[in-house]
Amino acid sequence: MGSPLFQRVCIAGIGLIGSSLARAIRARGLAGTVVTYDASPAVRAKALELGIVDDAPADVGQAVAGADLVMICTPVGAYAELAEAMAPHLAGGAIVSDVGSVKQAIIRDVSPHLPDGIHLVPGHPVAGTEHSGPEAGFAELFEGRWCILTPPPGTDAAAVDKVAALWRTIGSNTEVMDPQHHDQVLAITSHLPHLIAYTIVGTATDLEGSLKQEVIKFSAGGFRDFTRIAASDPVMWRDVFLNNKEAVLEMLQRFTEDLTALQRAIRWGEGEKLQDLFTRTREIRRGIIDARQA
Amino acid sequence: MGSPLFQRVCIAGIGLIGSSLARAIRARGLAGTVVTYDASPAVRAKALELGIVDDAPADVGQAVAGADLVMICTPVGAYAELAEAMAPHLAGGAIVSDVGSVKQAIIRDVSPHLPDGIHLVPGHPVAGTEHSGPEAGFAELFEGRWCILTPPPGTDAAAVDKVAALWRTIGSNTEVMDPQHHDQVLAITSHLPHLIAYTIVGTATDLEGSLKQEVIKFSAGGFRDFTRIAASDPVMWRDVFLNNKEAVLEMLQRFTEDLTALQRAIRWGEGEKLQDLFTRTREIRRGIIDARQA
Repeated sequence: MGSPLFQRVCIAGIGLIGSSLARAIRARGLAGTVVTYDASPAVRAKALELGIVDDAPADVGQAVAGADLVMICTPVGAYAELAEAMAPHLAGGAIVSDVGSVKQAIIRDVSPHLPDGIHLVPGHPVAGTEHSGPEAGFAELFEGRWCILTPPPGTDAAAVDKVAALWRTIGSNTEVMDPQHHDQVLAITSHLPHLIAYTIVGTATDLEGSLKQEVIKFSAGGFRDFTRIAASDPVMWRDVFLNNKEAVLEMLQRFTEDLTALQRAIRWGEGEKLQDLFTRTREIRRGIIDARQA
Repeated sequence: MGSPLFQRVCIAGIGLIGSSLARAIRARGLAGTVVTYDASPAVRAKALELGIVDDAPADVGQAVAGADLVMICTPVGAYAELAEAMAPHLAGGAIVSDVGSVKQAIIRDVSPHLPDGIHLVPGHPVAGTEHSGPEAGFAELFEGRWCILTPPPGTDAAAVDKVAALWRTIGSNTEVMDPQHHDQVLAITSHLPHLIAYTIVGTATDLEGSLKQEVIKFSAGGFRDFTRIAASDPVMWRDVFLNNKEAVLEMLQRFTEDLTALQRAIRWGEGEKLQDLFTRTREIRRGIIDARQA
């Protein structure tokens, strides 16, 4: 292996994704030094204890100083404040990237704070688990998954290439996409599924006492898959919905119309309508298996 | 091992569940003979080819003749006709059981056809996969899962015990429940999750061409879990919804109210409401993990 891709990587926010990235970067020797900044002293201490970073300064300026890559891995709602705090300390020519599930918001919240000569390359690894925190991460999380990059028009091509090279080296496929289009695609593939899972688990939580216990006991009939999704990080997901409002509400409206139609078919005993839909949906599953994303 | 629990078991309908049961019964030596009846000649041939049954007659009367246990494993919509066809051929004292996901319907559709001296013990193993057909089954499917028995009042206790012993021997825990209560519990833990999964996958299927391809490509963000559920057997699920209408519509109404409240919270940017729910739903997941149903 030659010289590392980056001299110093700063991971800002070291939860599931940030800590997986730190582990993957170290496993592949992609950075001379990996440091982290996290607002939580307990999380910083945990990251050091796990031995997944070289340093974890309490001061954001100290953390980003000298980094040629700053990777923002916090909930999206923390971006603006973080960008403002780090901006004066960024090294000239540094790349600022992120892993957030919404991509118009980072351009809106981060780019106004960045000095000239800093390259903003927003990114989104489509990977995760229902677990949170630095101890939940693992180096293989991104293998075989997609990482979508959404550089604003005019972004330095070399900076985009370097970020793409990082993701490919740790096992991901990369794709460049328009930020607005990204937010629309993810609204249906990720944000709406999470919203629905949270809702149905909430509906079950509100059931009368005895029924609620049985929901847990007999969850293997389908419900437990929803509970896994609905165990995802609450703050991260709150921020996703608040920051991709338009696309989520649009997809939710389509979903509600379709659900209402099915509700009517059940009420009126229209078996053919149900069977037709249930047959069509199998094809999408086959597409996912063929695309090796199952 | 002593003498088998049953002399001759007839499995009527040999798809995922029926074939798993045939395999499990044979693996544990629970029956002297295992035969199947299936309306499809191709499925009967497949069951014989797989070597999971001793015989697969084309005639239902021949299949059930001499059986001390007839286990109905067809979609629920086929029960009435099947019960009528088999009734004249049932051996005196035989037990008729089933594996359907709705339990009031079997009592409604099957018991009127059964002669005196036949014991109806409705059952529901809360287990399954998204695959269908006799080749999809496996003997371990029921291990560590619940099987709910819903015998009508006055059912012969020895018959219930024998069916329970069968399920326990192949690895399940058993529970006796009122049929109406069963249908209510399963409406929220199984039927509604399937309905929602089918709906969102259908919503995605209807998206404009390019967006639809990307839904498959980037499904790892949550959507693919729904596609797995929505790949379940279309006829089986059509019949579940048609035969548990009341409970499904009731739970669907609660779900829709909750979803509408969340939709409003997103529209108005009410982050606290979102975070509160997303935090509450984690607890249910912990309950499921503690109950070892994850």
